[in-house]
Amino acid sequence: MPELHELDTMFYPKSVAIVGASANPASWGGTSFLSRLQKLGFPGKLYPVNPKDTEILGLRAYPSVRSIPNPPDLAIIAVPASVVPQVLEDCIATGVKNVHIFSSGFAETGMEEGCRLDDEITEIIRRGDLRVVGPNCMGLYIPKSKLAYWGAEPTGSGHVAFLSQSGGHAEMLSEYAQDLGVYFSKIISFGNACGLQAIDFLEYLAQDPDTSIITMYLEGIKDGNRFVQLIKSINRTKPVIIWKGGLTESGSRAAASHTGSLAGEERVWDAFFTQTGAVRANSLQEIVDVVMAFLYLQPPQGWRVLLIGGGGGNSVAMADICSREGLEVPHLAEETRQKLNAFISLAGNSARNPVDAWMLQNDVKLFQRALELAVADPVIDLVILDQYTWNADDDEENPGNSQEAEKVGDFIIDFAKNNRFGKPVVLALNGRFNDAASATSTARLWRKFALAGVPTYVSQQSASRALSRFIGYHQFQQRYADVA
Amino acid sequence: MPELHELDTMFYPKSVAIVGASANPASWGGTSFLSRLQKLGFPGKLYPVNPKDTEILGLRAYPSVRSIPNPPDLAIIAVPASVVPQVLEDCIATGVKNVHIFSSGFAETGMEEGCRLDDEITEIIRRGDLRVVGPNCMGLYIPKSKLAYWGAEPTGSGHVAFLSQSGGHAEMLSEYAQDLGVYFSKIISFGNACGLQAIDFLEYLAQDPDTSIITMYLEGIKDGNRFVQLIKSINRTKPVIIWKGGLTESGSRAAASHTGSLAGEERVWDAFFTQTGAVRANSLQEIVDVVMAFLYLQPPQGWRVLLIGGGGGNSVAMADICSREGLEVPHLAEETRQKLNAFISLAGNSARNPVDAWMLQNDVKLFQRALELAVADPVIDLVILDQYTWNADDDEENPGNSQEAEKVGDFIIDFAKNNRFGKPVVLALNGRFNDAASATSTARLWRKFALAGVPTYVSQQSASRALSRFIGYHQFQQRYADVA
Repeated sequence: MPELHELDTMFYPKSVAIVGASANPASWGGTSFLSRLQKLGFPGKLYPVNPKDTEILGLRAYPSVRSIPNPPDLAIIAVPASVVPQVLEDCIATGVKNVHIFSSGFAETGMEEGCRLDDEITEIIRRGDLRVVGPNCMGLYIPKSKLAYWGAEPTGSGHVAFLSQSGGHAEMLSEYAQDLGVYFSKIISFGNACGLQAIDFLEYLAQDPDTSIITMYLEGIKDGNRFVQLIKSINRTKPVIIWKGGLTESGSRAAASHTGSLAGEERVWDAFFTQTGAVRANSLQEIVDVVMAFLYLQPPQGWRVLLIGGGGGNSVAMADICSREGLEVPHLAEETRQKLNAFISLAGNSARNPVDAWMLQNDVKLFQRALELAVADPVIDLVILDQYTWNADDDEENPGNSQEAEKVGDFIIDFAKNNRFGKPVVLALNGRFNDAASATSTARLWRKFALAGVPTYVSQQSASRALSRFIGYHQFQQRYADVA
Repeated sequence: MPELHELDTMFYPKSVAIVGASANPASWGGTSFLSRLQKLGFPGKLYPVNPKDTEILGLRAYPSVRSIPNPPDLAIIAVPASVVPQVLEDCIATGVKNVHIFSSGFAETGMEEGCRLDDEITEIIRRGDLRVVGPNCMGLYIPKSKLAYWGAEPTGSGHVAFLSQSGGHAEMLSEYAQDLGVYFSKIISFGNACGLQAIDFLEYLAQDPDTSIITMYLEGIKDGNRFVQLIKSINRTKPVIIWKGGLTESGSRAAASHTGSLAGEERVWDAFFTQTGAVRANSLQEIVDVVMAFLYLQPPQGWRVLLIGGGGGNSVAMADICSREGLEVPHLAEETRQKLNAFISLAGNSARNPVDAWMLQNDVKLFQRALELAVADPVIDLVILDQYTWNADDDEENPGNSQEAEKVGDFIIDFAKNNRFGKPVVLALNGRFNDAASATSTARLWRKFALAGVPTYVSQQSASRALSRFIGYHQFQQRYADVA
């Protein structure tokens, strides 16, 4: 049996102390954490700590960590920065090993007192051999443990981990991704990283059976060489997707005032991605875009994409976008084109690639026939379908459009999941965000496709970028395997 | 008095023949054009032409153009490609000068017969000195003339012209832009350009009093040198914004099969933009993004942007994005920071730039005070406000958020339009498109701000890119003026 990893008691605690919760209804911070754990039905023991109260949210309150009868598996500290050192000393004295420091007011302030406190708690953490997340962070979000004291209420537990030096990003991702059916094993917001580092969490996640994809938002790294080696090694079995913030001069200054991080130069990080094969992202959306590919798609054989959409100008745009993202848009074989032309040689439609087939989008049988013919072509490795959602509504000239569009949608889901060619199929689904009706209908279709496990993207740009990164990851691994 | 430009009779026709309209209710093409003109209340005469019908949509039908009593100002041709030469001959014989050929099936097919027909009609057009838009295109959209036989029903007439080699793009832009309060003088979809060229339309628009901003979607250009000179000259008084499609190899192939265009190489077009100072765009959205800046903003003094948003990680992201788009994110002056800190030095907020001020977004008085203080700083040239629409809803912890957010919105509009510093203020407004409630609320806010004349962008990326191009345009003109 593998030895129980020491961080397991932190991620799956049986008891939690919340230092700084309060009976004052206007209080937030610690109190919010406590009420959220109660609301989620955290099954373990909860110990509110506040010297001014005897009862908080229906629970007995303790004047200090020292007065809790049994040392809790985890202490959340939400008190003013100046009081944090004393609370840490209390933790050491009573044998509390796992601590999340929510409080801010340390090195990120850039002020003398904050930096002094940062140094002080770093020394205490080292001396006491504490396992500390933070300070200046949102801490842990572990759906399996019902330990999600911020962010969207977990609607499921999944296999994606997110390590974040931004609590805001961690919160947003918990909201955004779950709506697309992307669920988390662990989200860890770790702020200034005075105790546990990105590297410590990575080592845990590398062996964590609940995690198969690792995503990160990073501002700074303290041990660059170790980090490179670790990512290189983990990335071979669990894809690591990294958004590195603060790469520009202005961004770097902002990072310094956010988590006190030294952000590093862009060219150093370019080399890092080239060397490790880690997958690059530049926003939360880009992270989820790539994750959907990893969750739902088989690795394609190559970069050659079939584009099916509508409109001549749109076809040119799709081809330009894919090319710029490194995908190829090959000619279909003469035989395929002839077969396609037999039934889509209508005015303004084209059987080349991109296949300009808007007239098929409201006829599920023709759409199915065209798609199967084109995907069967051996020059094709993967497929991006461009769905004009703004044409999927009934109108005067085309009553019944929406029912037929619904059928086309059902067919697309079935084809994407079960096509006999095993070729990845994804959707680019862009509504008119400034039109309430279109935005609402697009949001519904997004949920339909994404929750069914079809990677669904907000634009051709997003789709081709995510696929390019996905293929790039697999080709890197392939080369590595060949060399090894 | 200036001589009446010869294209005026085409753009402002008093009579229109629709060749290929039909009494058959299943017919489209010409019939759709006719019924749309009727629906819009086109005030001039309409002449449906079809040898098989005597009455079409309540109007007397004519067997041919030759049988129309007075030559119409404009003929729309929507018949099979093989019949187009004969109709053009009829136009010449009866003195019809202005023609829109909707029909496709020419060089864009890449087939021998199509290319032959393309050559044939080109010869007829030249011989007859016809003014022809097309073939293979949607033609004209002129709200002022009630000549908008496709696209969104015009809700207003404005000063933006759009020249497009894609009918799909022309249609989409008419829908997308009007919802944001961007109205058109003329949209011209001109397809294969066998008759009138982009250059001809540009010469017209240069002197068109109804047009002050010119936007284009181009696939190919026939007279490169003339085009460069013309854009360079027009761009000095009317900004020219160009989306060049088909710049990649795949895109170029798609352009050839769309409008039979030779698309040209990316580096040639890079030089074109550098040389002419024309504004580059890569999508319809990017076109509208820049247009909003030109319509609503005074040119800023420089590139130094104030970013106001929320969240530490988000601040880092905003700074990175702006830097990559060429904007500067300067430190605020020490004095400004001290004043700001006096009331926003709350935990987790920052008075640096970006100003991390999410706590102010639900308190209009504090928001106003912070904004006025920061914008007054002389290191600032312009402002991007990042509004978290997903925080603008009421929730358990913050009842009344939405009313206060509404007040903040009203204040932002007033400040953007009337701030005493004359500094441009724009919004980045990004909702969660995969969440129907958020998407709906965002769409509503989009309309609120955009229709009030505040440039509103779907993301920080879009906002900073548009502003960077807007400033770049003015700096180019400035340099040019200095030299001249």
